[in-house]
Amino acid sequence: MRGLPLTRFSYLGPEGTFAEQALRTIPAAERGTRLPARSVAEALDAVRAGEVDAALVPMENSIGGVVAETLDELTSGGPLVIIREVVIPVQFVLAARSAIDLAAVRTVAAHPQASTQCRGWLRAHLPDAAVVDVLSNGAAAVGAAQGEYDAAICAPIGAHRHALTVLADKIADHPDAVTRFVLVTRAGRGRDGGGFSVPEPTGEDITTLAVYIAHDRVGALLSVLMELAVRGVNLTSIQSRPTGEQLGRYAFFLDCEGHVAEARLGEALQGLRRICADVRFLGSYPRHRWRTAGAAAQGATAPPPGLSNADFAESAAWLARLRSGDLS
Amino acid sequence: MRGLPLTRFSYLGPEGTFAEQALRTIPAAERGTRLPARSVAEALDAVRAGEVDAALVPMENSIGGVVAETLDELTSGGPLVIIREVVIPVQFVLAARSAIDLAAVRTVAAHPQASTQCRGWLRAHLPDAAVVDVLSNGAAAVGAAQGEYDAAICAPIGAHRHALTVLADKIADHPDAVTRFVLVTRAGRGRDGGGFSVPEPTGEDITTLAVYIAHDRVGALLSVLMELAVRGVNLTSIQSRPTGEQLGRYAFFLDCEGHVAEARLGEALQGLRRICADVRFLGSYPRHRWRTAGAAAQGATAPPPGLSNADFAESAAWLARLRSGDLS
Amino acid sequence: MRGLPLTRFSYLGPEGTFAEQALRTIPAAERGTRLPARSVAEALDAVRAGEVDAALVPMENSIGGVVAETLDELTSGGPLVIIREVVIPVQFVLAARSAIDLAAVRTVAAHPQASTQCRGWLRAHLPDAAVVDVLSNGAAAVGAAQGEYDAAICAPIGAHRHALTVLADKIADHPDAVTRFVLVTRAGRGRDGGGFSVPEPTGEDITTLAVYIAHDRVGALLSVLMELAVRGVNLTSIQSRPTGEQLGRYAFFLDCEGHVAEARLGEALQGLRRICADVRFLGSYPRHRWRTAGAAAQGATAPPPGLSNADFAESAAWLARLRSGDLS
Amino acid sequence: MRGLPLTRFSYLGPEGTFAEQALRTIPAAERGTRLPARSVAEALDAVRAGEVDAALVPMENSIGGVVAETLDELTSGGPLVIIREVVIPVQFVLAARSAIDLAAVRTVAAHPQASTQCRGWLRAHLPDAAVVDVLSNGAAAVGAAQGEYDAAICAPIGAHRHALTVLADKIADHPDAVTRFVLVTRAGRGRDGGGFSVPEPTGEDITTLAVYIAHDRVGALLSVLMELAVRGVNLTSIQSRPTGEQLGRYAFFLDCEGHVAEARLGEALQGLRRICADVRFLGSYPRHRWRTAGAAAQGATAPPPGLSNADFAESAAWLARLRSGDLS
Repeated sequence: MRGLPLTRFSYLGPEGTFAEQALRTIPAAERGTRLPARSVAEALDAVRAGEVDAALVPMENSIGGVVAETLDELTSGGPLVIIREVVIPVQFVLAARSAIDLAAVRTVAAHPQASTQCRGWLRAHLPDAAVVDVLSNGAAAVGAAQGEYDAAICAPIGAHRHALTVLADKIADHPDAVTRFVLVTRAGRGRDGGGFSVPEPTGEDITTLAVYIAHDRVGALLSVLMELAVRGVNLTSIQSRPTGEQLGRYAFFLDCEGHVAEARLGEALQGLRRICADVRFLGSYPRHRWRTAGAAAQGATAPPPGLSNADFAESAAWLARLRSGDLS
Repeated sequence: MRGLPLTRFSYLGPEGTFAEQALRTIPAAERGTRLPARSVAEALDAVRAGEVDAALVPMENSIGGVVAETLDELTSGGPLVIIREVVIPVQFVLAARSAIDLAAVRTVAAHPQASTQCRGWLRAHLPDAAVVDVLSNGAAAVGAAQGEYDAAICAPIGAHRHALTVLADKIADHPDAVTRFVLVTRAGRGRDGGGFSVPEPTGEDITTLAVYIAHDRVGALLSVLMELAVRGVNLTSIQSRPTGEQLGRYAFFLDCEGHVAEARLGEALQGLRRICADVRFLGSYPRHRWRTAGAAAQGATAPPPGLSNADFAESAAWLARLRSGDLS
Repeated sequence: MRGLPLTRFSYLGPEGTFAEQALRTIPAAERGTRLPARSVAEALDAVRAGEVDAALVPMENSIGGVVAETLDELTSGGPLVIIREVVIPVQFVLAARSAIDLAAVRTVAAHPQASTQCRGWLRAHLPDAAVVDVLSNGAAAVGAAQGEYDAAICAPIGAHRHALTVLADKIADHPDAVTRFVLVTRAGRGRDGGGFSVPEPTGEDITTLAVYIAHDRVGALLSVLMELAVRGVNLTSIQSRPTGEQLGRYAFFLDCEGHVAEARLGEALQGLRRICADVRFLGSYPRHRWRTAGAAAQGATAPPPGLSNADFAESAAWLARLRSGDLS
Repeated sequence: MRGLPLTRFSYLGPEGTFAEQALRTIPAAERGTRLPARSVAEALDAVRAGEVDAALVPMENSIGGVVAETLDELTSGGPLVIIREVVIPVQFVLAARSAIDLAAVRTVAAHPQASTQCRGWLRAHLPDAAVVDVLSNGAAAVGAAQGEYDAAICAPIGAHRHALTVLADKIADHPDAVTRFVLVTRAGRGRDGGGFSVPEPTGEDITTLAVYIAHDRVGALLSVLMELAVRGVNLTSIQSRPTGEQLGRYAFFLDCEGHVAEARLGEALQGLRRICADVRFLGSYPRHRWRTAGAAAQGATAPPPGLSNADFAESAAWLARLRSGDLS
């Protein structure tokens, strides 16, 4: 990242959840200040208001899917852009105040999504324990630390922060589950030089777009995909989303492989701009590669034959020769 | 619906939330038994185990977007199918034990998603009240009824069930917000005749599919959309979703206009079957039309010229003539 | 071919040209009567009038390309269908009344297209001879036989018929050049049972279509190709052709791999019928395989994965199961 | 046209045909020298050899369709480009040495394509006359002028050149028939400054391309059309053509609306260059508008919404702003 260093961060709180854990993988955030927010909206509003330099919010998680609130908040209000993604494994632990035996666990505090993800493990190892719903993974850890419950299902960071003992780790039924967070800053160049700059291309980048079409016709979506396919731009995610703003106006959130600075993605963006009711650029940023059992699937896809950036350069040079009258 | 009558229903609990309100719009459920479940998984498992005849679970809501848990649970385990959708407006109310003045409200219990949706109203009308997070809209109503909090943000049904006084209604910032639930039964014909039958076509139906492709290439998705577009089948929703099952295998959840019994959707389904790694049929059911300020946008889209069911019949008759040697 | 045997044939004359040579490769024509016609129109009119059972006319030749007159005559007037194609190599010979030396050849009679195709050979071997244009390859042979010219460029059959001596054979510059003829009969079932029947599928067939669209927009042609591509139907030829009948109405002549009796081509035909202003079926007939240096390129293309006739049958069976409620 | 003036022209002869008539509509050719050639190949070879500045050859005519010889000669040998098209009505006349009565016409000389086009008129007005095939429309006029035949079917210019009397005009059965010729020059910039320059865009131009694909798969052609459709480039003609050069290599000749100097056509050309085995640019030149009964259909097609040249400029400016970090 170019521009002034980022020192103040907000994130979806409370403390002791996966969001804090994800944020602290970023060196600048580990050194800087970190303010938990009560909601995605609050975290992003703090960026828009200039109270923080950047916010880390969840984009997609294994159980809930894409976080529609994040998508909606990114696209309403002043322009924000994603400058980084952080993907962390969702490794739930069962933690307690002391190293008690599993047989002694009668009550387990857990966020409903967490207990759902550990359903198989709970059935096998704690068939008789009562699972008590709490508001967040952080709250579960607090409850166990305060002795309200015998144990908590929480993130490793939550156990650590509240000095809990881990009774069992990796208890989620799907060992490869991950949550994807994005780090968001203000778009545009501030008068004070503190504004945003798109990160440099790394050769393995993601570009996130919100694309609006006037009608929910399959033909309109087909046209959107043709703009991408013709330039060899691969999609890693697509989500349709009705918008309340205007009758019959549909939005698609797209994660594309590539960077706005590259010829192929640039040409595709221009194409979308021409045919869509609106296109909102939400950032180009390095793809976060992580290691799980399924890690091999996470690499960038090679462009189709003839559609590499080098091919784009060659074809542009050819056209320039044609236009100068050189048909040799 | 044909087949034996449905009498036992599960739904995503607890009581007093929008899910219960949605379920009770179905006459058979209003007359039958209704069992709240702790999670979508639990509600659907009760159907698979034969403990209930059908389950009502959320498919998509205004703040959270598509409910990935529902999609995942529908596609793992024994086959289930959607036989009905219920769309209800998300009309939050502020309710209290008695008709107190707003100025007297110091604490408000609310599910975090509910308070987020009412953020603007709260800022305008209760700028100084403390909002306390609780686990569900139903829990908020209970908290107010028990005097733990001065007021609750909850569903109308929650206020009614707990005999609360509504201090303000329609307090959500987006007045057109809705939640969409689906009623799900076991697929296949049971030996006892109690099994599922696809509802008859009504002329305004939705068919939900899970479509799996081997790779996340834009070309593969383009092919899927071409199968639909060529038959004039419109999409009302598309969601990509990585699957953990196999490396590089992607799923798309599609809501298509049309019914499996119709020629055009049938032909499109066959096309998808041929080109996709897998296609899972999740039901054809009547579209639920509802009235909101944006209601006009919710009607079925007319098929493109030449692609009505009548056109499919005419072209089939023409081909039959050709094959019989009649080229007149 | 089913139906009554064909015994009377017309063909594009005069005698002694490649058309006669092609016709005589058909056993029924070798045994039957063969009437040369002055034009494609005259040959086809004889079929329409019932004067002959079938006509052999050129569809495409190496130098002139597709024979637009044939396309136009096939699509105007009563329905005709192609039941067979005959592809023969264009092997020009230089022939004379006796075995004279090349050095003695001062005048060469040739149809202009024939001399153009042998341009390189003439330059190398007869640089000083005068080439005299005549009206057909047959007329060239006649001219040499009557002593008007020292030699003729003609078809082998022309040399044979007029008892000429071949001075040099295979003198065309492109040794792989071929001409494609089609055998055409009346469509429809005659009262006397003598009408046409589409030849049985052989597994390697061509279907010829005339497809009309209302406008010459690239989008319309793209839709036509999508109908084919979605069913895995390969094109071996496409020719656009303006039609005088109506303003802005365009015709495309398509040669598709496959047979009208097959599911995949049948479904594609229905699709074209639905979206086009008009579709005219011009026959399904066995592909003629021939041997040239480039013969390897002439075989049928394997359908794309998932799009074989077996895949069409499997997907139809799957849909039938779905419709009966069997989702197992 | 920029560059040195063109003064020497070849054209497909002989004299007195529609080609000469078309050439003389060009002022520079009317003033310059005009050399009839015996074949398209000879006419173009004269350009390649520098013997003439430009050649006028037929591209498409009403009865024969696209002139494959012209396409093939344009794409083999040194690069040539089309700088102009000339479309003239095919208005056949019946002409004789003096103003004789139709009843006195016993023999009519005609090129076979000409007599075919006047078939209806001949049947109605000269049912008993013998039609004698001759080699060209020019030869027919000569034959009548020399008294070999009572009358000739020829071009108006042929009647004029040979001082014949027109007995009947506009005798072709299709009154709107036209022939399209192209004026071709050497491509590339000669050392002597005499080389070619692409004509300036006029807003209503045609660009002719030869596009080669490795296989005759419908998918490959679909990709070609998608490159055009995505940029809103309309096709006015498409012809597939097998090439002898390499096994399985197919060529498509495309006439596109637009000019190589325009953004939209330029982007489409680059796209074709990337995905095709080869693309050969054959010129951008003003569309010739002509008046016939069907003239209304001949105008340029308006680009689809969002795909005008102005839209291309706007989207390029937008991308430039994005890349500079300006998301306002």
